[in-house]
Amino acid sequence: MNAPRIWTAALLVIGDEILSGRTQDRNVAQVAQWLNGEGIRLAEVRVVADVESAIVEAVNILRTRNDYLFTTGGIGPTHDDITVDAIAAAHGLSVVVHPDARAVLERHYETRGGLTEARLRMARVPDGATLIENAMSGAPGIRLGNVFILAGVPHIAALMLESLTGTLEGGRPMLSRTLGCWVPESEIADLLGATEKAHAGCQIGSYPFFREGRVGANFVIRSTEAEGLDACAADLTRQLTALGHQVVADGI
Amino acid sequence: MNAPRIWTAALLVIGDEILSGRTQDRNVAQVAQWLNGEGIRLAEVRVVADVESAIVEAVNILRTRNDYLFTTGGIGPTHDDITVDAIAAAHGLSVVVHPDARAVLERHYETRGGLTEARLRMARVPDGATLIENAMSGAPGIRLGNVFILAGVPHIAALMLESLTGTLEGGRPMLSRTLGCWVPESEIADLLGATEKAHAGCQIGSYPFFREGRVGANFVIRSTEAEGLDACAADLTRQLTALGHQVVADGI
Repeated sequence: MNAPRIWTAALLVIGDEILSGRTQDRNVAQVAQWLNGEGIRLAEVRVVADVESAIVEAVNILRTRNDYLFTTGGIGPTHDDITVDAIAAAHGLSVVVHPDARAVLERHYETRGGLTEARLRMARVPDGATLIENAMSGAPGIRLGNVFILAGVPHIAALMLESLTGTLEGGRPMLSRTLGCWVPESEIADLLGATEKAHAGCQIGSYPFFREGRVGANFVIRSTEAEGLDACAADLTRQLTALGHQVVADGI
Repeated sequence: MNAPRIWTAALLVIGDEILSGRTQDRNVAQVAQWLNGEGIRLAEVRVVADVESAIVEAVNILRTRNDYLFTTGGIGPTHDDITVDAIAAAHGLSVVVHPDARAVLERHYETRGGLTEARLRMARVPDGATLIENAMSGAPGIRLGNVFILAGVPHIAALMLESLTGTLEGGRPMLSRTLGCWVPESEIADLLGATEKAHAGCQIGSYPFFREGRVGANFVIRSTEAEGLDACAADLTRQLTALGHQVVADGI
């Protein structure tokens, strides 16, 4: 049996505010979780500044070696919003005003002072791109081939992802099970490694923590196969229990 | 006058748990803020999986084109902790047990079941590396040339950063001022761009938000020059006020 094809995506987070530490990124986790449901694996993330050359370099490598590339940030109306221009440049395309985006913005700003030159910037797309609906603020996201250009504001990015749900080709959704245990991970490290090896198609991640003065760890088992996942979780539970550790289903 | 040298750092976040969306990263913002205080600019971030080839590729490009590279994650005792091996491989170095790290771990585990083979993994370093103190859990961070290998658990990474404070060569700390305004950023986009142009050495970022049914934006001015920063903030405040907008010092 051939291994099932794994679909991958990269995420490019664009914005000085993330690199300066001013803003806590929320889009990595949000995009990752959404991709899991679509059967697509987030394979890599980059964060770059609002600098065209940095965006171009990242876009071209990430879109080439992954099935999909998502970007967040830099599609607003101000001078530091250069994502569209940079992505067009990365593809060797010119930037045009998309008539549908223009119409959407005209309606949105009709009662809000009209569609100024700055606001019209949000209708600019790489030539040939299509729009991703944004139910919230009017300014749409943009799809260009396998590149999906989303807003940086997390709840707007979420709406854009929602409108993409079910539209992308993917594989089997990634499944996961978490087992928690009040044990130092160093004490059962060999057991974890051996259990992962014994269950092909499963990965086990170990995430230690210190809480209320005690050490513990959560073990996250991931697989696209429900049966294999269950078998691995049962095996790990059995082994930990045999060593006298109490296993907490769904993690601590 | 020559522009002052800008010192840059990259951050490489290593870990499946970030890419799966299971864990919300905290290290990007934390490392960024610490670097600001050291006069070093976080220029780029990458997140990669627990896969040696992915770590090697990222380490070699990031450490070459930045003054410093920080990594977080993958230095524990379990099978998925491969950061040390990958960074050694990236440098063409072998991995050795550091005698001081071994001694620290022996003391730490003396009353906790002893230094097992798995725990000894945490004393392994690329040949020639030095240690970064970890007051918390015994397992030290690692410095290899311009590469700083930190823990993934944010509060342990914070302790390691603390022990590095003041030890790295940097430039002037980045200063910032935030001005808030209940105005759609699209309404004053041209003003922002022109103000940034008029104040060399200052960058203005614009971060819109929707709160309590109203739109507003925070404008973050950044510069290494206190005087220039003040002048830019005063100029922007004056212009926004002249348009009838109330400016909130320190942001909304």
